[in-house]
Amino acid sequence: MSIVVVGTVAFDTVEAPWGKAERVIGGSATYFSLAASHFTPVKLVAVVGADFLAEHRTILEDRGVDLEGLVVESGGKTFFWQGRYGEDPNERETLCTELNVFERFRPELPASYCSSRWLFLGNIDPDIQMNVLDQVAGRPFVGCDTMNFWIERKPESLARLLRRIDILFVNDGEARQLSGRKNLVLAARDILEMGPRALVIKKGEHGAFLFTKDFRFFAPAYPLHEVLDPTGAGDSFAGGFMGYLAGAASFDERHLRRAMIYGTITASFACESFSVERLRALTDEHVAGRFAELVDLVKIELDDLK
Amino acid sequence: MSIVVVGTVAFDTVEAPWGKAERVIGGSATYFSLAASHFTPVKLVAVVGADFLAEHRTILEDRGVDLEGLVVESGGKTFFWQGRYGEDPNERETLCTELNVFERFRPELPASYCSSRWLFLGNIDPDIQMNVLDQVAGRPFVGCDTMNFWIERKPESLARLLRRIDILFVNDGEARQLSGRKNLVLAARDILEMGPRALVIKKGEHGAFLFTKDFRFFAPAYPLHEVLDPTGAGDSFAGGFMGYLAGAASFDERHLRRAMIYGTITASFACESFSVERLRALTDEHVAGRFAELVDLVKIELDDLK
Repeated sequence: MSIVVVGTVAFDTVEAPWGKAERVIGGSATYFSLAASHFTPVKLVAVVGADFLAEHRTILEDRGVDLEGLVVESGGKTFFWQGRYGEDPNERETLCTELNVFERFRPELPASYCSSRWLFLGNIDPDIQMNVLDQVAGRPFVGCDTMNFWIERKPESLARLLRRIDILFVNDGEARQLSGRKNLVLAARDILEMGPRALVIKKGEHGAFLFTKDFRFFAPAYPLHEVLDPTGAGDSFAGGFMGYLAGAASFDERHLRRAMIYGTITASFACESFSVERLRALTDEHVAGRFAELVDLVKIELDDLK
Repeated sequence: MSIVVVGTVAFDTVEAPWGKAERVIGGSATYFSLAASHFTPVKLVAVVGADFLAEHRTILEDRGVDLEGLVVESGGKTFFWQGRYGEDPNERETLCTELNVFERFRPELPASYCSSRWLFLGNIDPDIQMNVLDQVAGRPFVGCDTMNFWIERKPESLARLLRRIDILFVNDGEARQLSGRKNLVLAARDILEMGPRALVIKKGEHGAFLFTKDFRFFAPAYPLHEVLDPTGAGDSFAGGFMGYLAGAASFDERHLRRAMIYGTITASFACESFSVERLRALTDEHVAGRFAELVDLVKIELDDLK
């Protein structure tokens, strides 16, 4: 089944001690779509400006992403973000954020999107996330991302939203902030009480946890030789995860466990290039290869071995 | 098969925001022995002073640890360490170290220890580790711990030792320091070139990696609700790991993978109390319960699921 994603399509300038990429395509909806496109058709909802050219559009179209929901504001400029990584790729400093056309964006889903059974709400204002959710008919499966900014500034809106979603994606710092708990096991228990049926806590190079009321699962990060640019890794994780579930049309335990591995894989590829270069070049064989490697990485043979 | 461990038996005073333990039993050989004793007979080599009483001896004897190699210097005091943990249990400050009788300790293995096929060299001077290794007949399986202090101060001695051991246990910071590599995958590759057949890189709450030239394995840390005192967790990891291998009398891939899980389990119990209280109370059923939980935590069903 297809999945609708709402989020940002952006231009990023990324600096690191080992290189720089200027005004390259980025944004949560971009990374999510490219990752998810390996598993299921994707329908994108976002806004761009006049500086978003045919060559940028092609990046998404080449992966079959439906762009009917991509609004072009011909009088404006596309969302722009500039950041810098330190020697440790976990240290990121935002140098500049220009909302541009995104500032007044109020997404309206094309009619062809409104019957979707799968929806991903990228990290934007929770009131806008709720508005998008209200536009989808029936009761879709909903994944949602958020961040410290919204946890601090819009706690009531976020609380309302959490009661209506199936799965929340946060990193370890956000989980601690949202729950007020330092211990992640206790944080997860409290967040699940807030509404979502499942919770993913991402720990970057240290892997990711999945918690539900019935079971918990851990996926180690794929052991990379080199991290070139972690920008978009979280959105790529969500894309691989939600795309796999939507493609399988299932939210059961077996599929959720495998979704963690697919999310881990698409996130790992996102880190291996600036912008979306590595994700664009990804093949099903690459994905299958890393799946086998990750399964082997934690494999224990359960036989009659003492 | 039994395993010989050489290391420290100590008294520790541990402070944390949530409690304090004064002059409780600790030391690398203590934690290692109690953890390993669940899998195989343990023969301990260490030195203590006149302040090491029958009640302390009982802690080890109750778990069947052979104390023929425990030297009592009746004119001296036992090694003493005092440390303080911050709100984050990963932050540890050493307040005081008194080597006492350990300062001039040159271990001599009892004759009954010298034919052991399994040996663990706790974190002490690499020249002393080498001297112990030379006392064991033939070619035993050797596990070895070390730390930043020896990596800096005795690099040549450590390099000689690494060529004669089977498995090295270090944490992520030590792996980076020893290899001069920031990336753990590359650090592991370089350290394996230094001699050991296998390398365990421990990442505390973030789990542990096992690297060999043939395969790699990752074990997530057991998700604890509460960490009371991580002192001795690394030695407990090595104890569960080496004790299991010695008990199985095997160094093959299947056993090495399971050893990672047993090490993870004994380390997790070590964190749940001050000193060795939780390790002392450990039963085979507790170990088996966590083994099942950890296997389930990473379980992926490999069937015909799309």
